[in-house]
Amino acid sequence: MPEPRFEPPENTSGSPSVTSPAAPTVPSQPRPPGTGTPSGGGSRADDKRIDVVARAVMAMDDNEQSLTEKYLQVLRDGLPKRDVAVKDVLVLGAGPAGMLAAHLLKQAGHRVTVIEANGNRAGGRVKTFRSGGHERSRQPFADPRQRAEAGAMRLPGQHRLLMALIDQLGIRKEPFLLVAEDEDGNRTDDTWILVNGVQMRHSQYRKNPRTINDTFGVPERYRDVPADKILHDALGDLKAKISADKSEAEQLQGWKEIIRDYGAFSMRRYLREVAGLDEGTIDLVGTLQNVTSRLMLSFLNNFIDEALISPDTTFYELHGGTAVLADKMLARVRPEVRFDRRVTHIEYFDPQRDVLPGAKVSETGPRVWVDTVSEGRDGQPVVREQFSGDLAIVTIPFSGLRQIQIAPPMSYGKRRAVIELHYDAATKVLLEFSRRWWEFSEDDWRRELEKIRPGLYEEYKAGSAPDDSSLLGAYPSEHPHRITDAQRAHYAADRWLTEGESPKAVHVRGGGSISDNANRFMFHPSHPVPGSDGGVVLASYCWSDDAVRWDSFDDEYRYPNALRGLQEVYGQRIEVFYTGVGQTQSWVRNPYSYGEASILLPDQHTEIFPDIGTPEGSLHFAGDHTSLKPAWIEGALESAIRAALEIHELG
Amino acid sequence: MPEPRFEPPENTSGSPSVTSPAAPTVPSQPRPPGTGTPSGGGSRADDKRIDVVARAVMAMDDNEQSLTEKYLQVLRDGLPKRDVAVKDVLVLGAGPAGMLAAHLLKQAGHRVTVIEANGNRAGGRVKTFRSGGHERSRQPFADPRQRAEAGAMRLPGQHRLLMALIDQLGIRKEPFLLVAEDEDGNRTDDTWILVNGVQMRHSQYRKNPRTINDTFGVPERYRDVPADKILHDALGDLKAKISADKSEAEQLQGWKEIIRDYGAFSMRRYLREVAGLDEGTIDLVGTLQNVTSRLMLSFLNNFIDEALISPDTTFYELHGGTAVLADKMLARVRPEVRFDRRVTHIEYFDPQRDVLPGAKVSETGPRVWVDTVSEGRDGQPVVREQFSGDLAIVTIPFSGLRQIQIAPPMSYGKRRAVIELHYDAATKVLLEFSRRWWEFSEDDWRRELEKIRPGLYEEYKAGSAPDDSSLLGAYPSEHPHRITDAQRAHYAADRWLTEGESPKAVHVRGGGSISDNANRFMFHPSHPVPGSDGGVVLASYCWSDDAVRWDSFDDEYRYPNALRGLQEVYGQRIEVFYTGVGQTQSWVRNPYSYGEASILLPDQHTEIFPDIGTPEGSLHFAGDHTSLKPAWIEGALESAIRAALEIHELG
Repeated sequence: MPEPRFEPPENTSGSPSVTSPAAPTVPSQPRPPGTGTPSGGGSRADDKRIDVVARAVMAMDDNEQSLTEKYLQVLRDGLPKRDVAVKDVLVLGAGPAGMLAAHLLKQAGHRVTVIEANGNRAGGRVKTFRSGGHERSRQPFADPRQRAEAGAMRLPGQHRLLMALIDQLGIRKEPFLLVAEDEDGNRTDDTWILVNGVQMRHSQYRKNPRTINDTFGVPERYRDVPADKILHDALGDLKAKISADKSEAEQLQGWKEIIRDYGAFSMRRYLREVAGLDEGTIDLVGTLQNVTSRLMLSFLNNFIDEALISPDTTFYELHGGTAVLADKMLARVRPEVRFDRRVTHIEYFDPQRDVLPGAKVSETGPRVWVDTVSEGRDGQPVVREQFSGDLAIVTIPFSGLRQIQIAPPMSYGKRRAVIELHYDAATKVLLEFSRRWWEFSEDDWRRELEKIRPGLYEEYKAGSAPDDSSLLGAYPSEHPHRITDAQRAHYAADRWLTEGESPKAVHVRGGGSISDNANRFMFHPSHPVPGSDGGVVLASYCWSDDAVRWDSFDDEYRYPNALRGLQEVYGQRIEVFYTGVGQTQSWVRNPYSYGEASILLPDQHTEIFPDIGTPEGSLHFAGDHTSLKPAWIEGALESAIRAALEIHELG
Repeated sequence: MPEPRFEPPENTSGSPSVTSPAAPTVPSQPRPPGTGTPSGGGSRADDKRIDVVARAVMAMDDNEQSLTEKYLQVLRDGLPKRDVAVKDVLVLGAGPAGMLAAHLLKQAGHRVTVIEANGNRAGGRVKTFRSGGHERSRQPFADPRQRAEAGAMRLPGQHRLLMALIDQLGIRKEPFLLVAEDEDGNRTDDTWILVNGVQMRHSQYRKNPRTINDTFGVPERYRDVPADKILHDALGDLKAKISADKSEAEQLQGWKEIIRDYGAFSMRRYLREVAGLDEGTIDLVGTLQNVTSRLMLSFLNNFIDEALISPDTTFYELHGGTAVLADKMLARVRPEVRFDRRVTHIEYFDPQRDVLPGAKVSETGPRVWVDTVSEGRDGQPVVREQFSGDLAIVTIPFSGLRQIQIAPPMSYGKRRAVIELHYDAATKVLLEFSRRWWEFSEDDWRRELEKIRPGLYEEYKAGSAPDDSSLLGAYPSEHPHRITDAQRAHYAADRWLTEGESPKAVHVRGGGSISDNANRFMFHPSHPVPGSDGGVVLASYCWSDDAVRWDSFDDEYRYPNALRGLQEVYGQRIEVFYTGVGQTQSWVRNPYSYGEASILLPDQHTEIFPDIGTPEGSLHFAGDHTSLKPAWIEGALESAIRAALEIHELG
C-alpha cells in the first residue's frame, strides 16, 4: 500500500530535489551586513510581522478592531447564526482550547470529534491532584479530601473570557490569595523572604528594603527601594507607551514600537542596557521577583504579562480545584471526546499544494486524515484508529507536534516554528501536612506540639529537638502518615542543619515565601479544604534551570528534600505534620506537553509567532501557544474562539 | 547537640539580621542608568573581571604567563618537589578532575580521600556503555562485545594535557572520524543532510549549497556559500584579534576586547547584530552547524570553542571506549576512593569568617568536615559517614552543589554562581544493529537482504516492503534480537511513512548525518568493535530544548521513535538489523550532574565565571566548570592541576 512520502521520489537517488511547498512563505528580508558594532542595523524585524504581534497582544483583528467584545459574544451566544455547510471537524487535543472550540462548533451544528492522547483526563495543563473528578483519579494524598493544583492555579480577574466562561458554567470562584491575609481577611504580607542568609517578613522588607538589598550590593539609589518597585520602574517608560489612558490606536502604535525596538532583547539585556541596572540589582530583582530563571528569555514575555495583568488584579481559584473547569467543559462535549488516542500522523489537503501519490486526502474529501494509537496502558492491547474529516483544529503544543508526521510538509514558517518554538520547564513539588501549620499562631503551635509530648514546643523553639527523623510525622492524625523508611533515611541524611531559635509562626492564609534555596517559591493554600484539618503546601514552584533539577530526583528523595527547603524558612517543627505524601508535576517531562508553555526566546515574537496560528490548508491551529498569553487559560480560550470562527466562517 | 546554623540566632525572631560573610566580595560597580536606547552604557563588565576571563581562556596565570607548559610538567613529573607539610585532603567527586588532583597530591605525599556519589563508577561524564570495566557494568547491548559512549566521545588532538595523560597511561588512541571515510581511509563526506524536505550528501552540499540554502530563503550573497563557511566568516573579524600569528600579549589583549564587547551577547544577537545575518541564514547555520539549540546562550561559548579547536584538528577516541581513561585514572587512586557516598553537608574553616557555634571545624582542625550518605541501592541499608581533613577540593558540578548545605555561607559571588550557573541539557539515544549497514555498498545491501528472503532488496528499493513491523529485526543474527511487543506496537504506529525509492547506501565509516527531524544529529562508529559484525549508532545527539523532549519518553517508545528518525534519512531497510536494544544518556536527568556541562548564558563569563574557581577558606574548586573549557576533559584536567598546586603550594 503506497504511503504518502514527505519528499518526492526523485529525492531518494542521492541527487538533490526540493519539495515544492518548502520555500518560505514569509521570506526573510535580506538585511544589510552588520557594521561590526552592537547597534548594527541588521537587527530589526520587518513591519508586517511586527504588526501581527502587536495586534495579537491587543487582541485585535486585521482591521485593528478589538476582538474581545466579539469573542465574549461568541462565548455567550455561540457562533454567528448563518446558513453554513455542516462540517466534520477533528479537534486534536482536549485541553481548554480544544474543548471550547469543539463545544462552539457542535453548538453551531457541526460534527466534531475530539482526539485526546491522555487515557482518561481532559484539561491539558489544567490538572488538579484530587480524588475522583471526571478522570476518576485515585486518592493523591493521605487525606482523601485534599487536593492541589498541578497546573493552572491562579486565574486573573482581568481575563474576561475566562471569567465569563466560569460564570457561564456556574462554577464557584474564590479569591486566590497571592498576598497573605490574617484570619479576618486583612492583608498581612507576613510570609518570609530568606535570601543571602537574611530572613525577614515581606511586610518588613517593604518598610526596610535596605537590609536585604545591601546583601546584593545594590548601589545607593536602590538601597531603599523594594525589588518590585525597581522592576516596575525599570519598565515604566515603556509602559507609558501603552497606557490605558491612550486611545486604542495609540496603544497599538506603542506596542509596535516596543516590539520593534525590544523584540530582540532578553530580559537581562533590557534590565542592563535599557533600564541600566547593575548586576547586583538584577540579582535582587531576579531573586525576589522571579526573574532570574527567565533572564535569557524574551523581554517581551515579562513585559506583556506585566502590561496585561495589572498589579492590583484580583486572582481567583475555583472551588473544588481548577479541574472543575475541565469537568464542566468536558461535560458539554463528552460524547465527542475519544480518549487514549495519541496522534501519530496527520494528512491534510491544501489547494495550493500537490496531492502526494498515495495520499488519503483529496479535494473532494476527506480533507483531513489522522492516524492515532492508544498507549497500551495497564497491559491493554495497543489500538490504532484512523479519523477523517473536512477540517481539523490542531491544539497540540508544538513541542509535541514535533513528534508527529505531517503530510504534505507545512509552510516553511510553520515548520520552523514547530522546530524552534521554545517551551519552558516548570515543576511543582507539593507536600501534604496533617494540620495547616501556616495558619498557626505561636499559641496554636504550643498547643499542638504539646499534644505530641510535653515540652516539645520549647525544644523546637530552642533548636534542641532531635533532628534524626524521629519526629517526622509524629503528630497524631486522623489519616495515618505514609512515611517510608527510604524517606526517613533521606530526611535524616539531608536534614536542614539548624541551631538556635526557630523562626516564628507566619500565622497567615494564602500568600507564600521566597528563598534563594532550591525550593525558591513556596505557596500556602488560600482556603481550607472543607472538612479537613490538613492542607497541601506548594513547597517548591520553579522554572527553567531551577525546575529541571527537581526532575532528576526520585520521589523518596524529592519529598524529604523539598521538606528540608521549607524547614529552612519555617523551622524544623513543621516536620511533625508531614504525612509522607507528596505530588510532583513536571510539565517538561509530560509526554504530551513537553513544557509548561511556549515562553518565547528573543526575536521569536517576530520571527516565529506570526506563523504559529495561521491555517495550513485544512488545518487550523489553536492553543495558548497560538496566542500571546501562553501559559494562561485566557490565551487558550481566545485561540479556540478564533479557530472556531475561522472554520465556521468558511461558509 | 548544637548544629551550625546558616543564619545567626537573632535571625529567627522575625527581625532582620545579616550574616557577616554575605556581602559581595567583588561588589558590582554602580552603573549609570540607561539612556533608554539599546546601546546604553550600562552593559559593560568591569575590567578586573574581564582580565580574569581572558587569562582563563588563554590558560595564563595572574602574571600573564602561560600555564600550559607548567601544567604539562606537573602532569609528567608530579607536583614540585619541596618541603611541604603533609595534608589530609578530601576530594569530592571522582571524575577526571577529582581523580587527577587526588593522584597528584597522593604522589606528592599527601593523604587523600576521594568521595564519590556513584555506587560503582568513577569518571563522571566520562562513561561508556560496555560490558565489564572497572564498574563491572552489565551487558548493555545484545552483543556483549558492543559498546558506545554515553559522555565524552571525541578528544581533540589540540588538548595537550589530555593527549599527554592518554600517552602517560599507555592508552591506545584511534582517530575519531568526524567526517566519513571510505574503506581505504579517504574522506568521502558521503553522509546525508536532510532538511526542509531536501536530501543530499554532505559532499554534494559542499559543491552545490544553493539547493539547500534556497529552502531557507537566504539572500543572494549566501546562496552559494556552505553553512560552515558562513559561520566561519561571521566570526572572522573577531578571530583575527586572537590569531596565533600574534604575540601572546596581543592575543590576550584581543580576548579582553572580545569579552568586553561581546560578553553580553547571545549567539543569536551576535549573528544578527554583528555579523548582520538575516533570519533565514541564521536558521540555515543553526540547523546545519548545530547552533540553533544554543542561540540564546552566550556567544562566547561558541567563539571560545571555535577559537581553541581549529577546524583541522584531529579528533581521537580511545580503544575500548573513553571509560578506559577512567579505568586507568582510577587504578592510580583506587584505595583512596570511597564509592556510594553522596555529600549532604560541608563545613569548612575560613580565617576571615567567624566559626559558628557548634561547628565541627576550627582553626586547629579539622578544617573541613563532610557528611555523606549512601543511596541504599538494591535494598542495602542506608549508611551515613563523616569525613574530615585539612582541605577539600570540590569538583561537584554547581548544579549539584546547589543541593548541598555548606557552612559557613560562602562568599556572595560563589553563592550566586552556585545558584545561577547555567547547565545545558544533552541527550544521546543509541541504537544497536546486528550489522554495520552504514558501511554497506548497494551490493552489500542486496546480498544481506536477500538472506532474509529473495526479492527483499528490490522490495525495499521500490518502497513496497511491508512497514507493519514484520521485518523489524528480521536479519538472522548471532545474538537473538530483543524486540518487545511494546516496541513493535510503537514502531508500527509511529513508523515513518515512505513511498518510492529508498535512499542509497552511505557506504562509509565514521561521520554522521544531519536532519531537521527530532533526531537532529546522527553519528556512525569510526571503527568496528573487534569480533563483532554489528555496531551501535548514535541515532540522536541533541542539546537544550531538543534534548529534553527525548527525556519525556519511556524506552519502549523512545527507541522505535529514534529508529524512525534514522529511517527518514537512511531508508526503511535498516529495520532488519535493529536488535531491539538501545541505551540513552540524559545528562540533565543524571542526579549527580544535572546537565551536560556549564554552558554559560550571556554575561555569565564576566559576572559569574571569575567567582567559580576561587577558594573559600579551606575549600578549593576544580572540575570542567571552573575552566573555560566546560564539557571538555581538558578543562577538568587543567583545573585539577591548578587546584592541586594551590593546595601543595600552601606550604
